[in-house]
Amino acid sequence: MSLITLTTDFGLKDHFVGAVKGAIYSELPEAKIVDITHLISPFNITETSYILKNAYKSFPKGTIHIVGVDSELSTENKHIALELDEHFFICPDNGLISMVASEVNPTKIVEINIHDYIESSFPVLDVFVQVASHIARGGSLNIIGKEIQSYKKLVEIQPKVNQDQTIIVGGVIYIDNYGNVITNITKKLFSLIGKGRNFTISAGRYQFKKIVNQYNEIVDYTVPSEQRMYDGNKLTLFNSAGYLEIAIYKSNLETVGGASTLLGLGYRDTITIEFDTVVKPEFVPINS
Amino acid sequence: MSLITLTTDFGLKDHFVGAVKGAIYSELPEAKIVDITHLISPFNITETSYILKNAYKSFPKGTIHIVGVDSELSTENKHIALELDEHFFICPDNGLISMVASEVNPTKIVEINIHDYIESSFPVLDVFVQVASHIARGGSLNIIGKEIQSYKKLVEIQPKVNQDQTIIVGGVIYIDNYGNVITNITKKLFSLIGKGRNFTISAGRYQFKKIVNQYNEIVDYTVPSEQRMYDGNKLTLFNSAGYLEIAIYKSNLETVGGASTLLGLGYRDTITIEFDTVVKPEFVPINS
Amino acid sequence: MSLITLTTDFGLKDHFVGAVKGAIYSELPEAKIVDITHLISPFNITETSYILKNAYKSFPKGTIHIVGVDSELSTENKHIALELDEHFFICPDNGLISMVASEVNPTKIVEINIHDYIESSFPVLDVFVQVASHIARGGSLNIIGKEIQSYKKLVEIQPKVNQDQTIIVGGVIYIDNYGNVITNITKKLFSLIGKGRNFTISAGRYQFKKIVNQYNEIVDYTVPSEQRMYDGNKLTLFNSAGYLEIAIYKSNLETVGGASTLLGLGYRDTITIEFDTVVKPEFVPINS
Repeated sequence: MSLITLTTDFGLKDHFVGAVKGAIYSELPEAKIVDITHLISPFNITETSYILKNAYKSFPKGTIHIVGVDSELSTENKHIALELDEHFFICPDNGLISMVASEVNPTKIVEINIHDYIESSFPVLDVFVQVASHIARGGSLNIIGKEIQSYKKLVEIQPKVNQDQTIIVGGVIYIDNYGNVITNITKKLFSLIGKGRNFTISAGRYQFKKIVNQYNEIVDYTVPSEQRMYDGNKLTLFNSAGYLEIAIYKSNLETVGGASTLLGLGYRDTITIEFDTVVKPEFVPINS
Repeated sequence: MSLITLTTDFGLKDHFVGAVKGAIYSELPEAKIVDITHLISPFNITETSYILKNAYKSFPKGTIHIVGVDSELSTENKHIALELDEHFFICPDNGLISMVASEVNPTKIVEINIHDYIESSFPVLDVFVQVASHIARGGSLNIIGKEIQSYKKLVEIQPKVNQDQTIIVGGVIYIDNYGNVITNITKKLFSLIGKGRNFTISAGRYQFKKIVNQYNEIVDYTVPSEQRMYDGNKLTLFNSAGYLEIAIYKSNLETVGGASTLLGLGYRDTITIEFDTVVKPEFVPINS
Repeated sequence: MSLITLTTDFGLKDHFVGAVKGAIYSELPEAKIVDITHLISPFNITETSYILKNAYKSFPKGTIHIVGVDSELSTENKHIALELDEHFFICPDNGLISMVASEVNPTKIVEINIHDYIESSFPVLDVFVQVASHIARGGSLNIIGKEIQSYKKLVEIQPKVNQDQTIIVGGVIYIDNYGNVITNITKKLFSLIGKGRNFTISAGRYQFKKIVNQYNEIVDYTVPSEQRMYDGNKLTLFNSAGYLEIAIYKSNLETVGGASTLLGLGYRDTITIEFDTVVKPEFVPINS
C-alpha cells in the first residue's frame, strides 16, 4: 500500500484533481491518496512551500508527495523528484521545496527525464503520476531522472538579521484560514538572536512587546464570561508550525475580521523585531 | 479497519487537515478517513452541532468522529470523548455535541486527561488523534479520561413554545450551500404542538401558510416548461434532516440569490409559527 | 473493492457529502470514494457535463460515478443508470450525461424504478447509494430499473457551423480555477472545419489569429526573466481536455485577474471562429 499526497493550486471545482486521482488508482489500485490542499493561490510558490513543510512531517516515512503548482515544463522550470527525510517529493524545480529542504538535506535529487516519451500539457497527470507509481512500486529515482546536486532556492522565505544581531527583518509569508498573519520568523531564529532580551515587534502600525504561549492566554478567566471583552484582541505567538504569527483572539472573518484585515497586513509585508541592546550597569566610582 | 471522520473549522487551504490525516495514517495505516466538513465558520458551535448531527447517522456503528472547532484547551473548555449510539466522538466540551446528544443519550462520557504528558498548541493533531487511535485499537475510554456525567449544553438550538402551545419561537441555525435558511424547529416539534391546526410562519417580512413536501411541489408541470415562472419562488419545507427550512426554488446564489439574501434572513434571526386557536362552532339555540 | 466517484453541487460545508459517504461505507465497507467535485454551481448541468467528461476517463474500468446535480425526482426529471465505456453512471436524466455520451454510446440505460419503495427528499443518499451498492456487488442494471433507449440531450454544448463551413459559432461553457475561459469548440471540430486555413477567433472585443501549444509559448526565454513583460498576456490554446480555451498567462485572480474578468467573458457568451475563404489563383489567358 502506498500513501500519496497531493498539493496543488488546481482548486476544488475543476476536473483536474479528480482526473489525477483516477490516474493514480488506475496505476495503483491499493493506493491511499490524501489531499494536503488544492487551494494554493495560483502559482504561489511561497504558500506551497510553507504548507508542504508543515504537513509532510506528520505522514509516515515512505509517503510520496506530488506537488503541482506552476508545473508547466520549460527551459527554466524543470521537473524534479527528491528523496528527503525518507519521504519522496515530485514537483517542479521552482523553489517550492525550499522550506522543506532548508531543514533536512535531500539524500537524492533527480531531474525527471521521462518527458522524452510523454508529451503533455497536464504534467501532473501525465508525468508526476507515472513517477509516483514508479516510486510506489519500489523503483529507483535514477530510472526516471538524472541525478542533480541542487534545487532552486526561494529567497523570500529567509528573514534578514543585521550585523549587530539586534534586528530581525522578516516578512509575511502566509495568511491562514482564520486571517492570522504568519511570518517567516521561526522560534528558533528568535531565540538564537534574541537570547532572552526584551524586544519590540513592529507590524504595520502596531507594536507588540510580548509573545504569548497560546491564544487564550489573553483571556482573564476570573472575570465572568459575559463581561469579558476580548473580541478583536490582537496578540503574537509562535504557532504550531513554529513560526511567529500575529493573530486576533477568536477572529471571525465574517464579523470582526482577522488579523490580516484588521491590522492591514498582507502577503510580503515587512515585520521587524528589534531587541533591546542591553546596557549592563557599570560600577561607577562614587567620587567621579 | 477503522473509519474516522473529521469535522473542523480548519478550512481547506492551510496545512492543518493534511497534518491531521498524516498523523492518523502514521498511527493507523489501515484507517479510512472521511471529511465531513472543514468549512465550519470559525468557532461556530451551532453550525458544527447541526452538521454533525445530520452526518453522523449515515456512518456505520463504531465510527470515530473527531471534531475540532474551538478546541483550544482552557479551564472552561475541556476535551471530552463520548460513546453514543455506538459511535465515538472526540471533541471539546463546548456544546457542539448538544444536538447529537439531544436525541440519544451518551452511554459514556470521559474528560480526556492525557494532556498531562502532551503539551500542545494543536490539540486535534496531538491529542485527538491519540485518543482516536486508542479507541480504534479497541481501548477503553477510561484509559484516556476520567468519567463525567454531563456535557455542556447549547441553549441556542432550542426553540421556545408559549404556555398555551399556540406559538413556537425558533431561530435560524444554519444557511446551507444553496442559501436556504434552516431553523431549529423540527418536524417532530411542529406536529406535537400544531396537532394539525392551520398556522402562519413569520420569517422577517414574509409569511407562509403552507409547508410543501418537496421543492418542486410548487412547479406546475401542466404548463409548458418555457412558460413557467418559478425562479425565485419562496417556500417552506421540512428538509431531509427534519428541520423547517425556508427556501427559494432552484435558488442560484450567483444570479437570483438564495433565501438568505433574498428574504434578508441571517444566522440567529427569529422565526415564529403561530397556530390557529381553533374555536369549535357552538350549537346556538335558534330563538336566542 | 469498488471505486465510487461523487460529482455534486452540494458544496463542501453542509452535511450532504459526509452523509452520502457514510451511507456508502455502511453498504460497502471496502469501497474507495473519490470526490470529483462538489462545487458545481447550483443546478448547472453544463458545468457538470464538462467536468464529468474530463474526469471520468482517468478512472479504471468498472468505476461507478454518482452524479447529484438537480436530482430532485419529478415527472420531467427521472433518475437513470448507464453503462458506458465500461464505466457506470448514476444520475438524473437532465442532460448532464450528454458530453460523456456524445463520444461513446451507452451500452445500456435504465430508468431507475426502486423509488416505489423508497420515499426520499435526498435521492442521492437514499436512491443513488443503493443503486451504486447494487452495481458494486455485481448486480445487473435491469434489477433496479427498466431499460430505455435514450437520454436527455443538452443543446448548449454543441457549437454551430455555417453551411459554407467558414464559421464556427461556439460558446463559453466553463470558467476554470485560474479564470480561464473554456469554450465548447473542440480541437477535433476546429481541424475538421478549418483544414489548416488561417482564422480569426473573436471573443468579446478581442481577436486572436493564433492558437499556441502551451501557455508558456508566449514567453521569450532569451530575455532575462526580470525584463520580461508577460503578466496579463492573453492567448488561446486547446487545453488538456481538448477544448479551445482563452487564457491569461499565469493569471492571478487576486491581482491581475483571469481571462474571464480581464476580457469580460462569461458563461454562455459567444465565441466565433472565422476561417479565411482561400481563393485559389486562376490561370487567366493573357489576351483576355
